Amino acid sequence: MHTAHEVVELSGHIIDSWTLPRAWDTIMDRGGNFDVEEMHVGATKNDTSYARIKVTAPDENTLDTIISQLQQLGAVLLQANDVRTEIVEQDGVLPARFYSTTNLVTQVRINGQWIGVERIEMDVAIAIDREHNRAHCVPMHEVHTGDEIVVGHDGIRVIPYTRERDHEDFAFMQSDVSSEKVKVLAIHNIARQMKETRARGGKILFVLGPAVIHTGAGRYVAELIRTGYVQAIFGGNAIITHDIESALYGTSLGVQLQSGEQVEGGHRNHLRAINAIRNVGSVEKAIEVGLLKDGITYEAYIRNIPMVLAGSIRDDGPMPGVISDMQIAQGQMREVIQDGIEMALMISSMLHAIATGNLLPARVRTVVVDINPAVVTKLSDRGTFQAAGLVTDAELFLRELVEELSE
Amino acid sequence: MHTAHEVVELSGHIIDSWTLPRAWDTIMDRGGNFDVEEMHVGATKNDTSYARIKVTAPDENTLDTIISQLQQLGAVLLQANDVRTEIVEQDGVLPARFYSTTNLVTQVRINGQWIGVERIEMDVAIAIDREHNRAHCVPMHEVHTGDEIVVGHDGIRVIPYTRERDHEDFAFMQSDVSSEKVKVLAIHNIARQMKETRARGGKILFVLGPAVIHTGAGRYVAELIRTGYVQAIFGGNAIITHDIESALYGTSLGVQLQSGEQVEGGHRNHLRAINAIRNVGSVEKAIEVGLLKDGITYEAYIRNIPMVLAGSIRDDGPMPGVISDMQIAQGQMREVIQDGIEMALMISSMLHAIATGNLLPARVRTVVVDINPAVVTKLSDRGTFQAAGLVTDAELFLRELVEELSE
Amino acid sequence: MHTAHEVVELSGHIIDSWTLPRAWDTIMDRGGNFDVEEMHVGATKNDTSYARIKVTAPDENTLDTIISQLQQLGAVLLQANDVRTEIVEQDGVLPARFYSTTNLVTQVRINGQWIGVERIEMDVAIAIDREHNRAHCVPMHEVHTGDEIVVGHDGIRVIPYTRERDHEDFAFMQSDVSSEKVKVLAIHNIARQMKETRARGGKILFVLGPAVIHTGAGRYVAELIRTGYVQAIFGGNAIITHDIESALYGTSLGVQLQSGEQVEGGHRNHLRAINAIRNVGSVEKAIEVGLLKDGITYEAYIRNIPMVLAGSIRDDGPMPGVISDMQIAQGQMREVIQDGIEMALMISSMLHAIATGNLLPARVRTVVVDINPAVVTKLSDRGTFQAAGLVTDAELFLRELVEELSE
Amino acid sequence: MHTAHEVVELSGHIIDSWTLPRAWDTIMDRGGNFDVEEMHVGATKNDTSYARIKVTAPDENTLDTIISQLQQLGAVLLQANDVRTEIVEQDGVLPARFYSTTNLVTQVRINGQWIGVERIEMDVAIAIDREHNRAHCVPMHEVHTGDEIVVGHDGIRVIPYTRERDHEDFAFMQSDVSSEKVKVLAIHNIARQMKETRARGGKILFVLGPAVIHTGAGRYVAELIRTGYVQAIFGGNAIITHDIESALYGTSLGVQLQSGEQVEGGHRNHLRAINAIRNVGSVEKAIEVGLLKDGITYEAYIRNIPMVLAGSIRDDGPMPGVISDMQIAQGQMREVIQDGIEMALMISSMLHAIATGNLLPARVRTVVVDINPAVVTKLSDRGTFQAAGLVTDAELFLRELVEELSE
Repeated sequence: MHTAHEVVELSGHIIDSWTLPRAWDTIMDRGGNFDVEEMHVGATKNDTSYARIKVTAPDENTLDTIISQLQQLGAVLLQANDVRTEIVEQDGVLPARFYSTTNLVTQVRINGQWIGVERIEMDVAIAIDREHNRAHCVPMHEVHTGDEIVVGHDGIRVIPYTRERDHEDFAFMQSDVSSEKVKVLAIHNIARQMKETRARGGKILFVLGPAVIHTGAGRYVAELIRTGYVQAIFGGNAIITHDIESALYGTSLGVQLQSGEQVEGGHRNHLRAINAIRNVGSVEKAIEVGLLKDGITYEAYIRNIPMVLAGSIRDDGPMPGVISDMQIAQGQMREVIQDGIEMALMISSMLHAIATGNLLPARVRTVVVDINPAVVTKLSDRGTFQAAGLVTDAELFLRELVEELSE
Repeated sequence: MHTAHEVVELSGHIIDSWTLPRAWDTIMDRGGNFDVEEMHVGATKNDTSYARIKVTAPDENTLDTIISQLQQLGAVLLQANDVRTEIVEQDGVLPARFYSTTNLVTQVRINGQWIGVERIEMDVAIAIDREHNRAHCVPMHEVHTGDEIVVGHDGIRVIPYTRERDHEDFAFMQSDVSSEKVKVLAIHNIARQMKETRARGGKILFVLGPAVIHTGAGRYVAELIRTGYVQAIFGGNAIITHDIESALYGTSLGVQLQSGEQVEGGHRNHLRAINAIRNVGSVEKAIEVGLLKDGITYEAYIRNIPMVLAGSIRDDGPMPGVISDMQIAQGQMREVIQDGIEMALMISSMLHAIATGNLLPARVRTVVVDINPAVVTKLSDRGTFQAAGLVTDAELFLRELVEELSE
Repeated sequence: MHTAHEVVELSGHIIDSWTLPRAWDTIMDRGGNFDVEEMHVGATKNDTSYARIKVTAPDENTLDTIISQLQQLGAVLLQANDVRTEIVEQDGVLPARFYSTTNLVTQVRINGQWIGVERIEMDVAIAIDREHNRAHCVPMHEVHTGDEIVVGHDGIRVIPYTRERDHEDFAFMQSDVSSEKVKVLAIHNIARQMKETRARGGKILFVLGPAVIHTGAGRYVAELIRTGYVQAIFGGNAIITHDIESALYGTSLGVQLQSGEQVEGGHRNHLRAINAIRNVGSVEKAIEVGLLKDGITYEAYIRNIPMVLAGSIRDDGPMPGVISDMQIAQGQMREVIQDGIEMALMISSMLHAIATGNLLPARVRTVVVDINPAVVTKLSDRGTFQAAGLVTDAELFLRELVEELSE
Repeated sequence: MHTAHEVVELSGHIIDSWTLPRAWDTIMDRGGNFDVEEMHVGATKNDTSYARIKVTAPDENTLDTIISQLQQLGAVLLQANDVRTEIVEQDGVLPARFYSTTNLVTQVRINGQWIGVERIEMDVAIAIDREHNRAHCVPMHEVHTGDEIVVGHDGIRVIPYTRERDHEDFAFMQSDVSSEKVKVLAIHNIARQMKETRARGGKILFVLGPAVIHTGAGRYVAELIRTGYVQAIFGGNAIITHDIESALYGTSLGVQLQSGEQVEGGHRNHLRAINAIRNVGSVEKAIEVGLLKDGITYEAYIRNIPMVLAGSIRDDGPMPGVISDMQIAQGQMREVIQDGIEMALMISSMLHAIATGNLLPARVRTVVVDINPAVVTKLSDRGTFQAAGLVTDAELFLRELVEELSE
């Protein structure tokens, strides 16, 4: 017996974009059922379709789960009520039935009016500011007693992500993750998108792993900074440490970058590099006194390009400037992302790429470059579905990208 | 012209254990040269050998590098001076020529007497406590103005790691990393070593990644805790969150552990689990009020088994008890390790396994279990050379281990 | 201008099974367009739907491509003509417009009557035997002058593969390839299906790679043979050679299977094993004279279980019984598959698993077990979409499987 | 009690090159023991050393094993007898105690005189031609009744492989397999070696997998053929089929190489390509009639560059020119290799790379390029230890290589 029910509407390219079958799958997989109360199918590829569906479920909890998932497909409750909210009673604790966000564009209905949720990111709550008639995302640990938080599924509208058929530039990369593709084409495509992003004033974020330095590709990133294609950098202790190590001693992880030779014992150089910067006090000071004269960090600092360096439990040192507290680091990453990032390139990084993916709105063009297909897959699995993966060599990728952008 | 020189002695099974050729390699690779001033070769496998070698190098810096590496092979300077030290002049900054440790047993000479370095771990400094005639390891960020730190290479003795030929139980795993081995034998061997370790009062550390929970293997770890084979647990936000999620809702990452079915939308359960524990305030409180009644976390807490949970930049929540600050987390891990850990099993974890490897003395028997050979390789590459790798399925490994230990 | 057109019908669970949106995607991706001439949507999950669609394309070639792909989704041309055929004019050469099969159940219309295509497998041609009113698959190199081969897309009906929603036992494995799943459940499920397959007289095929022997898991396969769960074995020179090596000398690839110890130089044992069997002449003879007394090969031969061993370019020897000619080997594999195989387990094999996948009808339950996720993915990518992948350790998988089947 | 014994001599850089400790390891690992009867150690890195060692073992069989392994390290029996031989009594069957070769330079003593073994490759036997005083390698299946085959270990000398310390160009790649290296340097190094090889008239072999075509990198290989850097090509059905598919239809595995777009249904193009060539009869004929006008196959055929294409069990077709019988294919590969190959590049191929590795003398400079580190490791594990691995993207590797060679 299905006692709980709701009626939802879906409209747009709901068959073409596979929205309708996914909706039906969702309902049945969760143990619900449905009746199509009304349906118009667009007869050609340019026509939109419409469906009004009555969803039934054995109980209210199941119905809740179903409706919340249908919302992510763009379903809107027929009887559009305002969002329901509850008040936070304890710092850092959400109401039990809090609405958990996706990274998609989301609207909430306040006083009969749909308003956009600001600072959208996945897996956080939505706080309502009634005074200014606004709504914004807030992570669990940042809510305070008295905050008004969205609960349940009334009055929420999610705008699903649709890839345009004809002019989707990333399409050829997104179909699947494979190293057996023509990558030069993909690189040229990425270069073009970077130019377009910059032309319209959008910012580009680079998330970098230390292999960028180990492979000698730091020089290409430095060049991208100089030519204006990098507006923010995220990474960890390793990327800055090896970048500065290579600037100070010419090595990275004990490898002479000029000759490619293994310098055994050179692994101590990264500790020496950290100690040398700690000795002068900071990266800024190291630049000021002429100790640090090139590299990614140098190029970024002299241009006031924000580098958010989040530490990790495996760090030595750490290098001054690396943030030890994870919640502070996440907070700084959020600020940078919300300040105009429109494109993100994640190169040879797993931990920081996933962390950044968690914070990125789905609208940010995201490219993940790694020689290991598992990294690319992992990011998608964790919800950063908009990420286009390129399974290739980071060094040769960056070399080709710089060449293409310089033309 | 080689103007700098030192004379070193090597003794023991230096040919059998490949120490001598490695020493000569080291000298020549670094640009030095050598004369064998005296050499006795053991004629049979039970005899030890001895070599006195004059090392020459083009300059003092090169000689320094060579000698410091020879020390890691067990070389001792002929003219054994006391260790040289310098005083820390600024909190968190080491003297430029500080001696960087290995994870091997190390001695320093103070007032003509060799004393052991306490709390040994790799890539840190050695502080001297003259008052009590002691020496101990100290990470860079924990040194304080006035601390006396070992510099250079005088008066330092490293006891090299030698695998016993006949009775080395891990030998068959260490030869190389491969999934094409007889793993049941290896598992039985590990079980036997765990029994021996416990029989002599040694403690066993488990480092766990969340896949242990996702694969339903949490039950086996809980059983190992109950039967006394787990004395400490290291992990991150994910392992505790999914463990508690499975205890509260029966799912892990949206998978029903009983049925193996994907519960789409169940990915929210981990947020619900965190929020539920935050709501009561702590894991202890959750157990007290009867909210948390089983699982790894439950079994560990009720037995006062330390769980050090180090956060990371990709975390949601976090769960109460997870440490956000990396330096505090490293500090707690150090305390636990130094408190009697003699064996470490690292299962399906990369970040926390590497972090733990950084802190473990080489004498701790270390087993790394992962289905991905790259994880095993990475740990060795970063200096945890004592780690025996087992490329296999964590779930089936734990199932077999529990069965074997129960016999 | 779209001048070419056809009208097709689709019916059944075409929305629920995502058939309709895939059909529309197909049409538009290929540059065609469509009009929905008639459509009935099932209102509940138990109702079927119907659509009649007019497909238009800019030219006949494009229309051909579109229609042939729609057929794989179950579309049937409204004006059902008989199949069109052309006569082979040269041995081993097909008519240029030959119809290339899928591994799905397929029917052709001859004299107004739909008849099933026998011996279905992917990427081959269909030959018509007018005399007996039959149709069967034929590989390119086996066609002969005078054969009548299906061309174009008239009169062809493909029954699409639909997973049943409620009782699909493999569903939990098929959603994606991951090592982070509860594998014990999957293994029990596979065991149950093997029992059911045997209960109804179906045959089970094992495709085995040499790692099965190297890991000491040969004993489990031998046990499965003895207990009646293996009706055919496919593999290469390596599996039989190492199996016989382990039977004769107790080693596999130089590893003592009893102790797990590396026996350097033992790598010669596989050559000795081959030479020993060559010396007596054949495996049968080796059994007869008492040289070969256990192992997979022994158990299979004494029970007349067919082993098709296809050589490869990297083989030593080869072992007597291994087929050097690839076309002969493929032919024997086809015979065995068509003789009642209803389930296939492919374990630690890539080359032979892909080769077998090419020949299997989609209706054969297929399980691929490998510790490397890439192997599982590769098989699906090449068209064996029905394969359920289990990323786990072959040795522990087989151990658990034997234990479960013995209960 | 050790009753069996032999005395062997080792000389040269036996400590520096780790030969001596490996010899001692070998003896003890096999259960033997030794006495150093005489030893001179070179005092500096330029001096050679000498050791005369009495090896004892519990029985003759063990001694045999030990001596045969010591020979691979360059040990020579003190009492140098002539090689011992036995006569083949049955086609394709070796004497039970046949000597199994390595891929190292090997000499045998006939009538008191050391002569080189011709056509050296690993895992085969040595046949003696007394009439002409020559010795050559022969695979098991090619021996004939009456052939005289080397048995035991008398009168055999293996010249061990020593890497030169100072001028070893591949050294930086060989230390370990990692994607975290500076690859541009390695590529330039390979380019330089190719130039040197060609300058002295040496031939370069390319072993190619189909990913070379799928990634659009076929054009770079074609360019290398045109500029004289390719003297032989090994591959399988896939590389030639996709190369010709791309020449005829512009696609590879259903991907438009110009645009990078997936052409669903384009997977049939490889069958069409095979059928088209079968239709005209052969590749030569296809070129003659103007059907095939570019691509790797075209460029190779018009220059009479040998392409040995060995089929495999997973092949469709096959394409004319692909060899179905593995022993015939191996035979042809042997002929090509022995005809002056001095360098081998293996790109994105596993099966054919391993097969080629089996046949290559250790003196052939071998470079393995693959994005998957496991391929590189596997080749070394199987005895092709001289292979230098480069874990990188084949497409970008070839692009950079062509650019560097054109300068």
